[in-house]
Amino acid sequence: MGIFSNGKVKDASEQAEQLQRELLHHAQVTLAHPPSALDVSVMYQATAHSVRDRLVERWLKTEEHYSKTNAKRIYYLSLEYLVGRSLLNAILNLGLKGEYSEALKNLGYHLEETVEEERDAGLGNGGLGRLASCFLDSMATLSIPSVGYGIRYRYGIFEQLIADNKQVERPDYWLTKGNPWEVERLDVVYPVRFYGHVTTYHEGDKTHFKWEGGEIVLAVAYDTPIPGYGTINTNTMRLWSARPLEEINLGEFNEGHHNRAVEARDRAEAISSVLYPNDNHDEGKELRLKQQYFFVAATLQDIMKRYKKSGDAITKFDSKVAVQLNDTHPTIAIPELMRVFLDEEGMSWDDAWNITTRVFGYTNHTILPEALEKWSVPLMQKLLPRHLEIIYEINHRHLQLVEKRWSGDTARLQKMSIIEEGNPKMVRMAILATVGSHAINGVAEIHSGLVKTSLFPEFVELSPEKFQNKTNGVTPRRWMLQANPGLSKVITKAVETDEWVLKLDLLEVCLTTLLFVYDRVLWFCFKALIRADIHLLQL
Amino acid sequence: MGIFSNGKVKDASEQAEQLQRELLHHAQVTLAHPPSALDVSVMYQATAHSVRDRLVERWLKTEEHYSKTNAKRIYYLSLEYLVGRSLLNAILNLGLKGEYSEALKNLGYHLEETVEEERDAGLGNGGLGRLASCFLDSMATLSIPSVGYGIRYRYGIFEQLIADNKQVERPDYWLTKGNPWEVERLDVVYPVRFYGHVTTYHEGDKTHFKWEGGEIVLAVAYDTPIPGYGTINTNTMRLWSARPLEEINLGEFNEGHHNRAVEARDRAEAISSVLYPNDNHDEGKELRLKQQYFFVAATLQDIMKRYKKSGDAITKFDSKVAVQLNDTHPTIAIPELMRVFLDEEGMSWDDAWNITTRVFGYTNHTILPEALEKWSVPLMQKLLPRHLEIIYEINHRHLQLVEKRWSGDTARLQKMSIIEEGNPKMVRMAILATVGSHAINGVAEIHSGLVKTSLFPEFVELSPEKFQNKTNGVTPRRWMLQANPGLSKVITKAVETDEWVLKLDLLEVCLTTLLFVYDRVLWFCFKALIRADIHLLQL
Repeated sequence: MGIFSNGKVKDASEQAEQLQRELLHHAQVTLAHPPSALDVSVMYQATAHSVRDRLVERWLKTEEHYSKTNAKRIYYLSLEYLVGRSLLNAILNLGLKGEYSEALKNLGYHLEETVEEERDAGLGNGGLGRLASCFLDSMATLSIPSVGYGIRYRYGIFEQLIADNKQVERPDYWLTKGNPWEVERLDVVYPVRFYGHVTTYHEGDKTHFKWEGGEIVLAVAYDTPIPGYGTINTNTMRLWSARPLEEINLGEFNEGHHNRAVEARDRAEAISSVLYPNDNHDEGKELRLKQQYFFVAATLQDIMKRYKKSGDAITKFDSKVAVQLNDTHPTIAIPELMRVFLDEEGMSWDDAWNITTRVFGYTNHTILPEALEKWSVPLMQKLLPRHLEIIYEINHRHLQLVEKRWSGDTARLQKMSIIEEGNPKMVRMAILATVGSHAINGVAEIHSGLVKTSLFPEFVELSPEKFQNKTNGVTPRRWMLQANPGLSKVITKAVETDEWVLKLDLLEVCLTTLLFVYDRVLWFCFKALIRADIHLLQL
Repeated sequence: MGIFSNGKVKDASEQAEQLQRELLHHAQVTLAHPPSALDVSVMYQATAHSVRDRLVERWLKTEEHYSKTNAKRIYYLSLEYLVGRSLLNAILNLGLKGEYSEALKNLGYHLEETVEEERDAGLGNGGLGRLASCFLDSMATLSIPSVGYGIRYRYGIFEQLIADNKQVERPDYWLTKGNPWEVERLDVVYPVRFYGHVTTYHEGDKTHFKWEGGEIVLAVAYDTPIPGYGTINTNTMRLWSARPLEEINLGEFNEGHHNRAVEARDRAEAISSVLYPNDNHDEGKELRLKQQYFFVAATLQDIMKRYKKSGDAITKFDSKVAVQLNDTHPTIAIPELMRVFLDEEGMSWDDAWNITTRVFGYTNHTILPEALEKWSVPLMQKLLPRHLEIIYEINHRHLQLVEKRWSGDTARLQKMSIIEEGNPKMVRMAILATVGSHAINGVAEIHSGLVKTSLFPEFVELSPEKFQNKTNGVTPRRWMLQANPGLSKVITKAVETDEWVLKLDLLEVCLTTLLFVYDRVLWFCFKALIRADIHLLQL
């Protein structure tokens, strides 16, 4: 197999020599840069390609293993991933920092400068996104079969400029220099419908529903390998890019309407253009809901395709599929999976609902009422008419249970309803997520407590078994090993192993030891001071 | 050097084994397809990547050689290239057909089926485009340092569908499955200006002109290697793709004007969208002229950059640079080079004009008056105001010469003027090309004769030395060796060498031999018939 054909275990300097050959090969052949035109920017690309090759080998093996064992998978759905830079993280996870350093040094470059050439991925913004990326890293490290799904934003979160004492927002063109980490999967494409109408037809005493018409947008997959630390296990982050069904209207173009000819393309491309588009107006709101449904619909089609390939019966779906909703953004996945089960798989409501609730888990990120996502019923009716019907049916059955338990408690009914009364009526996504999931967690002990006591006390009364806590951690690979190599060395020395990178519990021992040592040293100091009759205040 | 590190000469089956390893490497590592998901479409991509790697090695060596020897280069400017498919042509040029065949066979694929997976490049339409591609092939084969410049159209010439007895034009989405032959050069980018105004300022007794304002569009280079047959010489086709200066207007986007936010992007992208956009209306005409100036301006910047790197004085420009205009489409290059010499290099008119005319050659493709390109003066004034000034000055000086020779011959002056009187006035591009070039050719003996006698008799009288003929040929590599392998074998046997692929003259001998053989055989037949007393009419 080409570059990696040789199965022998190599020593570090042999390995560095091989890497050096790979770097030159990628710089000159893959990137077609003549030897005279090499610079640190080309060397970054070449290094990224070499690392990517190594990841791909592990990636394919991992996928083969998952397929062979027909493993249950965790699908992590997040509207953002704060990936940061990938090169150094991947090199550390491969355990090849010394080797790449040496290979680059022999070519006249420094690893530290080379990694600085990488642009941060423009796919995430804050804590929610970093949580998602840390989870992907940890699941890979722990060899948990998982795929992270999201949107491949063309322009990341804006860069802030200040002009005339005002904020000016400049798009983050993070992709304009290319992205060596992603594999464009032009053969993994799914149609996603918007707008249209629901047709009803009858077969015997059964009523069927079909969502038809409207507009179709294509979702094209871009895959990025997510390496685990100290394991060959390499998982996938699969992001969707929106494409139009028809790229250009040649009729319009030939009439001279060059902008109008690509209106459909622009409308489709807008969906995967910008992370968190402004939504303080109707167009922005519609675009955000489009983004949510777009990535959820493509993702569920992808999951269903993978599931069906295994040959298992559809009724066992939840035995192989777990979907984690990172905040309420992907909540439309709940009615979407119901729609697929009901309208496409011909399942009964009860079967569909049982499986659906066993599939979904929901991570809550906020208890602030103003930050809890709501979508207006008219917007949902226009963009996703079938989903609105299903949401109403979910709500109807949910409220029947509430009414059964707390008969006549209208205030409670109103509080627990997925639909908020008003003008317009609103769909409360956090309540939909809570009703449709079997597990709900906050991201810190105190936060999960508040979710139970102040946000959803009525739901805790109804189904206490659903509520739990998962404290939001960060991976020690990126946030200690990569961020502070000096301190990492001290810790490794203190706990006499580098295992702490995988088992953070070891640091607890380390801290206890440290405190003990301080304590002893201090005690000896005190004794010495007392013996010498020196009072502390004299010092 | 990675895959090709081993310098040993290999025999065919060793070579095939190595190719097999390369194909698997590209399928699995470069394209990240697991062994279980390989199919003929993936194998086409893998084969293309393997061939491309080999071409890139030769490409870099060729470029290095050209740079070292500071060779004079021919720059071929064409608005279209009818490239066809590249895989089999490249394999034949590399002389590795048997080896790739065997490598693919060992993996369970046929070369013949594999090459069928390639889509024709959507970069050209007819004879003019094929002529351009044949020239690039021949120049590479003859080791002539040359670059073919053009536009990387996103959608090729339309596919014709018939609906309701009418032609419906469907765009040719030739790039939607990727293009393994091109190298995206995100670091080779030039600004191209449109619209704006000309500012005049004085320095002593000299007047300077500066074209300012307007709109800037970026031209990004995409390079394709053009292999020669039986030589390591590999030339370049460099095509320009239009990008906006600012990808998205985030302010507009955040206001909810998602289409308006990308208007500038659409306007820029339209330039490299479609080959020959309809121009029977003003918008279409403007777009076509934009296409022409766009690729010419980027090309001349690229040529100038390469030239300046060599360190030669600007006054020797024509000793290293020859630009061939394929039809009138790139004629705006003549006033553009004048503008660069005058306004940017500070040259005098006479020096600039002497060099410019020595640089350009013009290939005429038609003598039909209605097919000769003309641009309205108001359009040129709006889109390229400085060029219009320069064209007027070129015309003024040119007509002075005419007037000097045929004093008072107003009819001749009118006929030979670059500007056609009327409402609106028009710029005649064929006359501009003829005036600004040192060599003008037709593409067949009879056509070149008609150019002289019926199209430009007055210009032949003025400068007879300029007119010549270059009969339009096609490369025997693609049109015999690749198109008809059976006949190729017969010919090779007949002339007892495969040299005819490079020297088509050998076929002449072959034909003479063939005629002689026929003649002899016929003679013997006749003699036999006569002897047997069988009259021909009896047969």
